[in-house]
Amino acid sequence: MDLSSLARPQAIRGGSPGPLGAHAARRRSVQLLRPCRPTVRCSVEAAKQQVQGIPAAVAAAAEAEAARKECFGVFCTTYDLQADEKTKSWKKLVNVAVSGAAGMISNHLLFKLASGEVFGQDQPIALKLLGSERSIQALEGVAMELEDSLYPLLREVSIGIDPYVIFEDADWALLIGAKPRGPGVERAALLDINGQIFAEQGKALNAVASRNVKVIVVGNPCNTNALICLKNAPNLSAKNFHALTRLDENRAKCQLALKAGVFYDKVSNMTIWGNHSTTQVPDFLNAKIDGRPVKEVIDDTKWLEEDFTITVQKRGGVLIQKWGRSSAASTAVSIVDAMRSLVTPTPEGDWFSTGVYTTGNPYGIAEDIVFSMPCRSKGDGDYELVKDVIMDDFLWNRIKKSEAELIAEKRCVAHLTGEGNAFCDLPGDTMLPGEM
Amino acid sequence: MDLSSLARPQAIRGGSPGPLGAHAARRRSVQLLRPCRPTVRCSVEAAKQQVQGIPAAVAAAAEAEAARKECFGVFCTTYDLQADEKTKSWKKLVNVAVSGAAGMISNHLLFKLASGEVFGQDQPIALKLLGSERSIQALEGVAMELEDSLYPLLREVSIGIDPYVIFEDADWALLIGAKPRGPGVERAALLDINGQIFAEQGKALNAVASRNVKVIVVGNPCNTNALICLKNAPNLSAKNFHALTRLDENRAKCQLALKAGVFYDKVSNMTIWGNHSTTQVPDFLNAKIDGRPVKEVIDDTKWLEEDFTITVQKRGGVLIQKWGRSSAASTAVSIVDAMRSLVTPTPEGDWFSTGVYTTGNPYGIAEDIVFSMPCRSKGDGDYELVKDVIMDDFLWNRIKKSEAELIAEKRCVAHLTGEGNAFCDLPGDTMLPGEM
Repeated sequence: MDLSSLARPQAIRGGSPGPLGAHAARRRSVQLLRPCRPTVRCSVEAAKQQVQGIPAAVAAAAEAEAARKECFGVFCTTYDLQADEKTKSWKKLVNVAVSGAAGMISNHLLFKLASGEVFGQDQPIALKLLGSERSIQALEGVAMELEDSLYPLLREVSIGIDPYVIFEDADWALLIGAKPRGPGVERAALLDINGQIFAEQGKALNAVASRNVKVIVVGNPCNTNALICLKNAPNLSAKNFHALTRLDENRAKCQLALKAGVFYDKVSNMTIWGNHSTTQVPDFLNAKIDGRPVKEVIDDTKWLEEDFTITVQKRGGVLIQKWGRSSAASTAVSIVDAMRSLVTPTPEGDWFSTGVYTTGNPYGIAEDIVFSMPCRSKGDGDYELVKDVIMDDFLWNRIKKSEAELIAEKRCVAHLTGEGNAFCDLPGDTMLPGEM
Repeated sequence: MDLSSLARPQAIRGGSPGPLGAHAARRRSVQLLRPCRPTVRCSVEAAKQQVQGIPAAVAAAAEAEAARKECFGVFCTTYDLQADEKTKSWKKLVNVAVSGAAGMISNHLLFKLASGEVFGQDQPIALKLLGSERSIQALEGVAMELEDSLYPLLREVSIGIDPYVIFEDADWALLIGAKPRGPGVERAALLDINGQIFAEQGKALNAVASRNVKVIVVGNPCNTNALICLKNAPNLSAKNFHALTRLDENRAKCQLALKAGVFYDKVSNMTIWGNHSTTQVPDFLNAKIDGRPVKEVIDDTKWLEEDFTITVQKRGGVLIQKWGRSSAASTAVSIVDAMRSLVTPTPEGDWFSTGVYTTGNPYGIAEDIVFSMPCRSKGDGDYELVKDVIMDDFLWNRIKKSEAELIAEKRCVAHLTGEGNAFCDLPGDTMLPGEM
């Protein structure tokens, strides 16, 4: 199914002088006028060292290099991959922007990206790390550790706190940073706080990212954050925005394998439908174990209908109890999986789950929300929705419940999507515990 | 150079009824009599779920499985790799034991090992995670995250707090766990506290590990810990024990690249000599940039002789200041590098650094300590010391200083190596700040 011709919402499109458009223009000009921050970088120290005892021209070059605030240390040098026998057959540099780059999920993810796990051993990488004023020192630490890791594919690292700088020419934007939910914070308040972050980042992507940027939203509530983000990026295809439900898919596969007494690579066709929340629907109707329908292999309807879903949903909370913090490593693995699913062809007959824009979906799910559904990819970064899935009342009723939740969330953030005044009547408190 | 015929110290060898031998025997018998700890595991919960609505035989099997305390969840099932078309060409399972498995370095390392970064995509892996009573819950969290990551190569995960169980048949032992140095703790006290851990782990390896186990000691002070460990494992080849200095090597390469304005892959033949401490000697005399001696490329003797070494030594401390914690990710990367250097042939003309047993070394370094030196490997897990290095007075004097420090450390832990009473006269406080 080709979604490329889908109608895009018009609310904040074009140059109309509506309140959001004006705000965006003001935001951009403020951005452009903002003075350079005099943050000290490792490259400055390095440049200072280089100045000692070397010619004035070199010293001047070092000073100029030091003035480039965005780059970092050894990554400030420009490397001509064409000039090197080892690297001249490599692909063109891919720009990967990561928000929340000083956090624990990123701390796992960045090293995986740099090692070539996602794009392969002939794909040089530039990492653009977005942090906050508070985390800028930690970002420098991350960049130093990336330097010390000597990854051959990693050719550029830049750090900053301005999405309009960091997202420039981004081919991928992995939006991990979000405020975690503190004690006593209402879900509506969280939607608003984080929604504002994603509205701003959507505008920045719209302004400066590659026109074909793939965006994966990880920061929670990720479905609605992804919706806000794409609504604020009217010049980018809505199809290129994803909300991460891959960790849920991976967890569901593992639980089915555990129950069936098989290795997890025997589980396929696993869909997570809906919201990345407790209304998520791990689909055991369409999933297969060793090529057979799950219900033929696991003859325990009560477990499938009750325990299975609860176990998948509560996995994150159990992990926090045991581990004392949320699941950074496996979340990073699932981001790698999600990216790899878009850049490698999906195995014949199988599919993967990702939260995508629903307009034009073949299942009858409400349009204009971000909903996790089964997808296939040719490996070109794009995807199509899978058509040949089966539905029964049990599955459909649960899908409708998750849909209702997402529609309610959407009403809650109408002020951030350009669709009028927010009206918050969330059906219940369904946030995944402790999930980023 | 073949070190396999080297004389081993006799002090704690054989069945002689010396105090340490008797202690070791007592330790082992205590071990055997120790009752199973009734720690609850995910597998127990899983087994309970499986019991519902399935035959008694299956339920009994599940109960038996639950009783196997060491394994974890989906990894408790035994998988016959020969029976599967996809996996039957794979190598025999490799057992990798990791101590300090609930810590941050391991949290990066375990996922790298499971992904196949070290051993390749046809090498199935069993991970044996050693923790403490205090960290056992966190270890369960780590195992759960490994489950959720669906690594095809990862076939077994077991967790525990008894090195005599966890090290059984280990092909690799990565000894990361050590007490960090608290405020006001003297280095001599730290040597004693951590030395005891490594003495016990050496005994356990001696008793139960593969006879060809490769041991990499990361926990600090790692050189002397490695010495203690190998002295307590008289039935294993001393040549198989390493102290990790690879992070220092990587940092040194990066700093030379930064100074020369080249990418870090242009730097080769980088040796770290000596102790993983502030007396370490990053060797710019033998190192090369783009195949040329460093001194020909970097015409700044003052920087090479003073700033370079200090920058490498202090890198860990600077990182702690910026990042608020020690460098877990890049340490894990360097452990992967160190392992990979032993299982893949060293590129022609190049070498790598690792802290190894000095007896029989061709450089004139004192025997019977663990000292970082330049090595090459055929990729069979073994190594030989590089002979064609050059020395000058500047380099040699610094090597002697690091040697003196290690000899002093050795006197400090004589009670742990079976060489009599400890006598502590450490020349100064040379611990790397905050290093694990």
